Amino acid sequence: MREVAIAGVGVVPVREHWERSLRSLGVEALRSALIDAEADSADTLYVGNMCGGMLSGQTHLGALIADYAGLHGIETVRVEAACGSAAAALRQAVLAVASGAVEVAVALGVEKLTELSGEAVTHALATAGDADYEGQMGLSFVALNALVMQRYIHEYGVPKDAFGAFAVLAHDNATRNPHAMFNDMRVTSEQYARARMVASPINLLDSSPIADGAAAVVVTSKDYARRHTPRPVSLLSCEIGTDTLSLHDRESLLWLKGVERSTKRALDRAGKSHGDIDLFELHDAFSIMAALSLESSGFADSGHGVQMAQDGELSIRGRLPISTFGGLKGRGHPVGATGLYQVVEAVQQLRGDAPSDIQVDGARVAMTQNIGGSGATVVSTVLERS
Amino acid sequence: MREVAIAGVGVVPVREHWERSLRSLGVEALRSALIDAEADSADTLYVGNMCGGMLSGQTHLGALIADYAGLHGIETVRVEAACGSAAAALRQAVLAVASGAVEVAVALGVEKLTELSGEAVTHALATAGDADYEGQMGLSFVALNALVMQRYIHEYGVPKDAFGAFAVLAHDNATRNPHAMFNDMRVTSEQYARARMVASPINLLDSSPIADGAAAVVVTSKDYARRHTPRPVSLLSCEIGTDTLSLHDRESLLWLKGVERSTKRALDRAGKSHGDIDLFELHDAFSIMAALSLESSGFADSGHGVQMAQDGELSIRGRLPISTFGGLKGRGHPVGATGLYQVVEAVQQLRGDAPSDIQVDGARVAMTQNIGGSGATVVSTVLERS
Repeated sequence: MREVAIAGVGVVPVREHWERSLRSLGVEALRSALIDAEADSADTLYVGNMCGGMLSGQTHLGALIADYAGLHGIETVRVEAACGSAAAALRQAVLAVASGAVEVAVALGVEKLTELSGEAVTHALATAGDADYEGQMGLSFVALNALVMQRYIHEYGVPKDAFGAFAVLAHDNATRNPHAMFNDMRVTSEQYARARMVASPINLLDSSPIADGAAAVVVTSKDYARRHTPRPVSLLSCEIGTDTLSLHDRESLLWLKGVERSTKRALDRAGKSHGDIDLFELHDAFSIMAALSLESSGFADSGHGVQMAQDGELSIRGRLPISTFGGLKGRGHPVGATGLYQVVEAVQQLRGDAPSDIQVDGARVAMTQNIGGSGATVVSTVLERS
Repeated sequence: MREVAIAGVGVVPVREHWERSLRSLGVEALRSALIDAEADSADTLYVGNMCGGMLSGQTHLGALIADYAGLHGIETVRVEAACGSAAAALRQAVLAVASGAVEVAVALGVEKLTELSGEAVTHALATAGDADYEGQMGLSFVALNALVMQRYIHEYGVPKDAFGAFAVLAHDNATRNPHAMFNDMRVTSEQYARARMVASPINLLDSSPIADGAAAVVVTSKDYARRHTPRPVSLLSCEIGTDTLSLHDRESLLWLKGVERSTKRALDRAGKSHGDIDLFELHDAFSIMAALSLESSGFADSGHGVQMAQDGELSIRGRLPISTFGGLKGRGHPVGATGLYQVVEAVQQLRGDAPSDIQVDGARVAMTQNIGGSGATVVSTVLERS
């Protein structure tokens, strides 16, 4: 396999973009990534998207967005792994370049959720779980996560209010991130404790906001990047691990085997260990997912993920900064685009381009982790400063 | 890039499988392909599917089907390019193996259309076109193809009844194919001339039947296949070409640039020319698409595709047999699975395993061509007997 690099990145701010379409968001992120890479064109485009068919009446996004972005005729397909779609698209771009079949690939994640009613969105998101055994029971995505959080509190005796540390941290970082949805909304532990309940024990500040957005990265061989682009970042690995779709099929609600598998594969292929990771963009769709990601990835002992947040270890100046641009909680969670926001942000950290208050000093190696469903598809990516 | 082979194939008969689910169809095809390859497991699974989210309330099919097929924990994603989804999944399997990242990949196409009303299916299929410019105008898929066929008849002066030759040929071949939906329904030119109009000038016998089905192939490196599987077939190339989603953006309604691009790329990479192709499994979703595929691929002059069918050149003993197992018209068209039915059938031809009446004598090289939308994504695959 050829060595691979990220040659350019681009994002659209995460917002409720009521006036814009799926294609318009996708084209903007794609074009800005190409400009950042100083690339005129690309050989292939992978579009990560979850809900286009269900909410916008639009499948077949690869050919549509390639055409509108001025890449008429190139190879392109859409890749889907629920909320893990964007990083799954990156994985395909990496394989395409690694194979030698193409020189310049673009991975784009794009999602437009403000199209129909909230009910339609809830239904669309529930398709990420097992439709026959979970969806049919009326289990929405927040309900699934509430079951897991309840079990966590019961099993480990962690007080509910302790989870507030994740919300405080994420919102604090998001205020420094211009592309964050909540870039002007700090929250306190007191606000967390008073927040409206959504599905007990998950309250409003445990939940990331769904939103519209698009993020793109340009992937090339390392050699090509060195010759053609100003500031490449090495992509050491991008690896997928999976688990059962439904929660009831798992040995434990509190251990994400997909996370464990994906992390191990990504670190092994990158030749890195946990101690090498300078920052970790994890998938904090709900605060319980942040805790479980830390634990199942091997960065925290079981039942101790929340404590890490409370102790300040996960803050920008802490031992393992997470959600440095606000994470899913503060930046916002346009589901099929999220995984590439994480990668773009990690690239900005490694380039030293993050806004000063959220720049991780001397960041050399970053890991991102994008999760589909309640942990059934997990994509972990390890990046290194060139 | 490593050389790649198809080590095993499996299908579920194309039917209205009212009593079965998406996962059940997918698992059956996948398992039978693994058994055919004499493989115990696979490293990665690409699931081609178009309508799962819209019709079955189920996205995230990669992890779901991998788990139910006994491949728990492996890498897997879903790939979508409308009706071209299955062959697009094959392309990803080829890249994964060619890169050296994996040894055994499975490409699976699966579709379940008998879930909701015909109206819901018509809507879901229309998402393959441009939702904002075609779908919003009420243009269903058959309507788009009717516009093209009308133009063809006008431009080239081909009588409408001449198209019947495609239906007669496809249904004749399908009667010999046990996995065909219409394996007991021969049709005549007279029946074609009397067939009920669907969207003028497209009648019922111009249209392939949508249906449920699943087809899978096991892809490995050529070396691995030689050592581990009984009857590998060489996969020389699998290449995607694209075009605009909407018809109105094209220079001509009668020239499929995606087909031209994909065919050229596939033949070039395979090191083959048109004369080397012993059979061509084309995408005859409508008889007009069969004609345009022949022409835009370079197998027929413009306006002469229909004549080829009338002259018998496309029959099993003709110069370029097409739709040898009945094509989309006779085998049936489970949209996101179709592209892999084509590949499975081509493999059966090259192994000499086709039922005797439809076996192409001495077939050495086959091309398959799977089309998404009205020609926006085209995947052409060239296979050779080992």
